[in-house]
Amino acid sequence: MIYFDNSATTKPYPEVIESFAKVAGEYFGNPSSLHGLGASAERLLQKARKQIADLLHTTPSEIVFTSGGTEGNNLAIKGAVHAAAKNGNHIITTEMEHASVLETCRSLEQEGFEVTYLPVTKDGSIVLSDLIHAIREDTILVSIMHVNNEIGSIQPIEEIGRYLADFPKIMFHVDHVQGIGKVPLDFNKCHIDLCTMSGHKFHGLKGTGILYVRSHVKLSPLFTGGNQESKFRSGTENVAGIVAMAKALRMTLNKQNQASDVAEIRDYLMSELKKIEGVKINSPESGAPHIVNFSIPGIKSEVFIHALEESGIFASTTSACSSKNKAISETVLAMFHDLSRAESVIRISTSYENNLEEAKAVIQAVIEKMAKLQKVMR
Amino acid sequence: MIYFDNSATTKPYPEVIESFAKVAGEYFGNPSSLHGLGASAERLLQKARKQIADLLHTTPSEIVFTSGGTEGNNLAIKGAVHAAAKNGNHIITTEMEHASVLETCRSLEQEGFEVTYLPVTKDGSIVLSDLIHAIREDTILVSIMHVNNEIGSIQPIEEIGRYLADFPKIMFHVDHVQGIGKVPLDFNKCHIDLCTMSGHKFHGLKGTGILYVRSHVKLSPLFTGGNQESKFRSGTENVAGIVAMAKALRMTLNKQNQASDVAEIRDYLMSELKKIEGVKINSPESGAPHIVNFSIPGIKSEVFIHALEESGIFASTTSACSSKNKAISETVLAMFHDLSRAESVIRISTSYENNLEEAKAVIQAVIEKMAKLQKVMR
Ligand SMILES: Cc1ncc(COP(=O)(O)O)c(C=O)c1O
Ligand SMILES: Cc1ncc(COP(=O)(O)O)c(C=O)c1O
Repeated sequence: MIYFDNSATTKPYPEVIESFAKVAGEYFGNPSSLHGLGASAERLLQKARKQIADLLHTTPSEIVFTSGGTEGNNLAIKGAVHAAAKNGNHIITTEMEHASVLETCRSLEQEGFEVTYLPVTKDGSIVLSDLIHAIREDTILVSIMHVNNEIGSIQPIEEIGRYLADFPKIMFHVDHVQGIGKVPLDFNKCHIDLCTMSGHKFHGLKGTGILYVRSHVKLSPLFTGGNQESKFRSGTENVAGIVAMAKALRMTLNKQNQASDVAEIRDYLMSELKKIEGVKINSPESGAPHIVNFSIPGIKSEVFIHALEESGIFASTTSACSSKNKAISETVLAMFHDLSRAESVIRISTSYENNLEEAKAVIQAVIEKMAKLQKVMR
Repeated sequence: MIYFDNSATTKPYPEVIESFAKVAGEYFGNPSSLHGLGASAERLLQKARKQIADLLHTTPSEIVFTSGGTEGNNLAIKGAVHAAAKNGNHIITTEMEHASVLETCRSLEQEGFEVTYLPVTKDGSIVLSDLIHAIREDTILVSIMHVNNEIGSIQPIEEIGRYLADFPKIMFHVDHVQGIGKVPLDFNKCHIDLCTMSGHKFHGLKGTGILYVRSHVKLSPLFTGGNQESKFRSGTENVAGIVAMAKALRMTLNKQNQASDVAEIRDYLMSELKKIEGVKINSPESGAPHIVNFSIPGIKSEVFIHALEESGIFASTTSACSSKNKAISETVLAMFHDLSRAESVIRISTSYENNLEEAKAVIQAVIEKMAKLQKVMR
């Protein structure tokens, strides 16, 4: 099996599962309980919070544990604008965000907020001057992803953050779900107020996530109740999942030093795919090291995904969560305005677990399957 | 160790942890991915949904997976009233709900909804006629818990549901977090529209929960995004946690046939505690089989909890999530209007893992520790 769908989800490291099982079995107390079993669970939770804060160069009180990237994006965006509604009602985002940002902005439009969706270039990136022009007196939130989940383009977060630093009323939220562990991001240097991460995208467990909330940022919670997580997120904490996520983050960030291997796989895939007639590369040259997106106009995505699977290769079409509903990539459509290209996207997304041999097998399979399918279609 | 804090959280069954570890390691695909790894994760998810639906006598499409009881209560209450806001803006609940219901109602008051908090009797139960009088033209939601988490009182859910059945505009939500697996509840017979459960309260894992949403009930989601969980709850599904929760639910419901053992422990504790001078029982006679709440006026809860812990007994004060903030039990105060009683509550909450020997050890410890502490204080 060659697993090249790491942007949809990653395989948890065995150590991560082990540590989950140990904590769930031995430290099962409710961290809010007054007795020793509660206290030892609470200590583990605070240790994990400290570890994660250190790894992200933040302070523990800025770390809010969530159930994943979707919750993180919803809490950041809805929470920030509801808390700041008296300051204005305008939001700026881009047209190529993940559904958990786009749909959240759409739901806020229903509530009366106004949203500007910035366009993207053929490189899958916004243009800073568009953002500058979009800013209004009543803008309260800018939400822009770091690494795009479909094509791997990297937004100029540092430039944006530096610009927004002059607008203290505007909160800056970054969806870092695809970037963490792959493309470094300095929250402070980039003047980020809110930053979303998801455990299962870096070999942690599904159902765990991190929202970075800079000190003094106000958020209206989505869950009210027992006031856990500094009142930002009530509910009994998933201690075992959080401890496991701290381990996954540490292991992944350690491996980031090996990033050259992943970049090598990408360079190889990009240069080999370019040589194949009929293949169009959608990822920008300057994209993230772990995502290669291409189209084979004329062959529908699903057909090719299944053909690759016959060779034991697991790749994907668009983002996993929309793959079942619509077969076309809105992102690729927004970038190239070319329907047949948007209908035939294939995304290869790697992790530090992949190697060059696997990339070679993919290229071979792409060539073979294309030839076979094109023959059938002729 | 004698663990008598099962209403705060339960120890996951070893089989539950094993099944989590197996699924997380072997079926790690994203259920939304189009390839075989995605499909096998999706199949497991649907199998778990079917198992849970069968166990609860509902249909699979009525089961929404959440991250726990707090999310379930927030989604049910906020979701229902936001979706029905055009029909009215009045909510009815009780003054002894869990914080995740009470605080949610309070946050809705901030938004302009009106909330009636029904009083409770000395039995910790509401009176149906109070509810009947509270209903208004513009009432859209009634939210009443099944089993109270502090004293174990059981609300007359069937009576309430039958009465509300004549008001099709009013949604009926039940917080069943403490009841599931302990006190049977027939969702259909009780005309329940929304019912919250939490995995870690029945030997499943923290970070997992179930919200029952009767067919045709409209809910405005808290998380928007990829439209998982019938659009009620976007976000990559915690497949391993959900499979583990299905197992925990099946095992717990099987053990419910042993309910007589738990009832025997409770009967023993109630009758022995009554014999001790200076102890006041707060739980009603007719309460749930797994909760015994009593006070020792004059000895603060925390002091006694720590004294019991010296004998290896883990009990609790009020509900875990508020135990750190305020030492008094609002519930006991609402029932008896007696501060010293509310400041000295002790909750013993059992599971099918406990036995009569442990109960005997608790009674002995209560007698000893009381004598010792009272001597010190004199
Ligand atoms: C960029 C991006 N943001 C948010 C999410 C949502 O994260 P989760 O799957 O943890 O809900 C994803 C993945 O699905 C993503 O790729
Ligand atoms: C009655 C009741 N409702 C809701 C909850 C919240 O559930 P969770 O801890 O899963 O968020 C609890 C437990 O804390 C509870 O006892």
